[in-house]
Amino acid sequence: MAAFHCLTFLTDYGLEDGFVAACHGVAYQIAPNARIIDITHLVPPGDIRRGAVVLAQTIRYLPTAVHIAVVDPGVGTARRGIAVAAASGSVFVGPDNGLLSWAIEAAGGATEAVSLTDRSLWLNAEVPATFHGRDIFMPVAAHLATGTQLRSAGDVIPLDSLITLPRPGSSVADGVAVGEVVTVDRFGNIQLSVTAADAGRADVVPGVTVSVSGERGELTIPFRRAFGDVPVGELFAYVDSAGYVSIAINGASAAARLGLEPSMPITLHRA
Amino acid sequence: MAAFHCLTFLTDYGLEDGFVAACHGVAYQIAPNARIIDITHLVPPGDIRRGAVVLAQTIRYLPTAVHIAVVDPGVGTARRGIAVAAASGSVFVGPDNGLLSWAIEAAGGATEAVSLTDRSLWLNAEVPATFHGRDIFMPVAAHLATGTQLRSAGDVIPLDSLITLPRPGSSVADGVAVGEVVTVDRFGNIQLSVTAADAGRADVVPGVTVSVSGERGELTIPFRRAFGDVPVGELFAYVDSAGYVSIAINGASAAARLGLEPSMPITLHRA
Amino acid sequence: MAAFHCLTFLTDYGLEDGFVAACHGVAYQIAPNARIIDITHLVPPGDIRRGAVVLAQTIRYLPTAVHIAVVDPGVGTARRGIAVAAASGSVFVGPDNGLLSWAIEAAGGATEAVSLTDRSLWLNAEVPATFHGRDIFMPVAAHLATGTQLRSAGDVIPLDSLITLPRPGSSVADGVAVGEVVTVDRFGNIQLSVTAADAGRADVVPGVTVSVSGERGELTIPFRRAFGDVPVGELFAYVDSAGYVSIAINGASAAARLGLEPSMPITLHRA
Repeated sequence: MAAFHCLTFLTDYGLEDGFVAACHGVAYQIAPNARIIDITHLVPPGDIRRGAVVLAQTIRYLPTAVHIAVVDPGVGTARRGIAVAAASGSVFVGPDNGLLSWAIEAAGGATEAVSLTDRSLWLNAEVPATFHGRDIFMPVAAHLATGTQLRSAGDVIPLDSLITLPRPGSSVADGVAVGEVVTVDRFGNIQLSVTAADAGRADVVPGVTVSVSGERGELTIPFRRAFGDVPVGELFAYVDSAGYVSIAINGASAAARLGLEPSMPITLHRA
Repeated sequence: MAAFHCLTFLTDYGLEDGFVAACHGVAYQIAPNARIIDITHLVPPGDIRRGAVVLAQTIRYLPTAVHIAVVDPGVGTARRGIAVAAASGSVFVGPDNGLLSWAIEAAGGATEAVSLTDRSLWLNAEVPATFHGRDIFMPVAAHLATGTQLRSAGDVIPLDSLITLPRPGSSVADGVAVGEVVTVDRFGNIQLSVTAADAGRADVVPGVTVSVSGERGELTIPFRRAFGDVPVGELFAYVDSAGYVSIAINGASAAARLGLEPSMPITLHRA
Repeated sequence: MAAFHCLTFLTDYGLEDGFVAACHGVAYQIAPNARIIDITHLVPPGDIRRGAVVLAQTIRYLPTAVHIAVVDPGVGTARRGIAVAAASGSVFVGPDNGLLSWAIEAAGGATEAVSLTDRSLWLNAEVPATFHGRDIFMPVAAHLATGTQLRSAGDVIPLDSLITLPRPGSSVADGVAVGEVVTVDRFGNIQLSVTAADAGRADVVPGVTVSVSGERGELTIPFRRAFGDVPVGELFAYVDSAGYVSIAINGASAAARLGLEPSMPITLHRA
């Protein structure tokens, strides 16, 4: 009996080569009945943080699955490959470089982890140098989907040995919400690390005007509920579909206009 | 028993975020046996007309399905979400902003329509602000695929209340075919609204020379059957795979060379 | 009984139009149980050689399948459409322009080939002009997947009449490995035609320094096993995941820095 009916897959492999398809082919030959949901393969090359953001914010909408993620600038070095069971029932497979850490937290936290040392689950027993997605992560994940036990994939490792990325902060003091730029989406909307709850504690709620400050200067913009609430071409802030305060322009790219980039510190207060 | 075995999906969500995957995940958890065919997710942000063209021209090659399309600059405003049954047996789900209108016509016209007011089919009962694809359209569509009746999705609305986009014209008078630029494809081929039939009534048929006029000036180019009929690098006109007169360059982008854009008026006559 | 459970699909159709989805829809209506693995649809328009490289290097990781590939600048001319059975058990379907040739070789060579002359397997019996992927190749392939015999698709043709692309060379003489640039991947890594075996015969192995010469000048760079073995920002050579010597920069695009393009001759020797 299959343990998982679904695999999900996130990488920085791009779509112009055959890399993603090779992984799909490997998975199909081991677990032909598993559905594969591609999350994205357009993470900028090597951008672990961006991969971690997309994975963590998508995970709550995905079924219980084996989630494979590969953004792996350290491929071929001593960094470990890992498979991590989470409290949600899902398993995460990928490099131990922090990429998986926010998604594992969103899935209720790790309950058991192994280092992928058992070569019998790899595509070939020899150690591959550069394409662990195809040669290690996907074949191990597909075996797990067919019911292979996590401990068969390698040595159990302490949960507190797993690499985690520092989480972008969200806090409030004296009516000012403090955070940073987290990421920018396809539309150029700029997601901040400030949660809707923290914004609310600073009295920044739909309907008010908000002052946004950072190293690029200060903006005073309306805080609204949706794009349709502001005229085309105007900057505004809102709570996005992941629950964070974001800055957008109705009909254009706020990131292009403002030059805000991930990790820049930002403060919000009611104007 | 499932009413539909297939969902199709068109958006302007792009491929670099997890937006499309979140929708796939939502669909899978409601209708795990439904196949999802992605039409495209690269409609330019907010370009309803472009989304409508791609959907309408692809629909005749898709199976009977629940077709979900989301290009939705008015998300969060009073615009309705709708589900529309068509004479072909398919159902269309998306915003009531004209996006679905040409595809519904291509599917034989609407036979019944509802406004998506029943929150029991939504992902959550609260009203989402910005991501109706994930929170309303996809979960409703997936429920319809599993056999939920259309009327369970909300209030029946009059068919003549549905928003429709004006159709680009195609007509002939005095040996001149009149139309406009409809769209430009990946190859830079420029599709006009002039049908093969109307071109033929103006005696513009494969083998002749055709004069194409518009605000960018006049071209005199061969009308041919296929790319291989003209030398590499040469402009020509032909009937494209959707049945419309198009202007192309064998091996290059006609749109880049000519600067023609959607909605520009164009006339054709035999030179 | 189905002959094949899987179709794979490679084109230059891009992802912004509905072209790929129309083909998926056609396949689904003929062979609803076949899984479709998309290899890539981002082959540069008309670039047969690039399509051939990606297909051939991916094929060994794909299941036995009907492999459909369409990069077809000669569509509508006298070039044949073909279906070719390979020794591996797979069948290849596409234009007879060399696109399939390296993949067929990688699949053990052709065992039988037909010209796609039987219109009863086409989408419509009339001869389409420009979209053979939708109108001929995909429907024929889907019929083959459901168990239709290869010979039902058209006239048997001699195997030595199939168009093949010249293979980029790899040779060694006097301690110098000779080849050419084959392709560039998403990361800007430059794949040469020199095999790991030929490099080894020239004593170019992980750990040494290698001299790379061509019309853009000469580089002296380390030959390493993986990206993690060199500092970020440094050029190096390595054996890539397809078994060829490649030139890369850890964390950046070697192609952008060096200006090397497919077909440029290259020599390697130990420095």
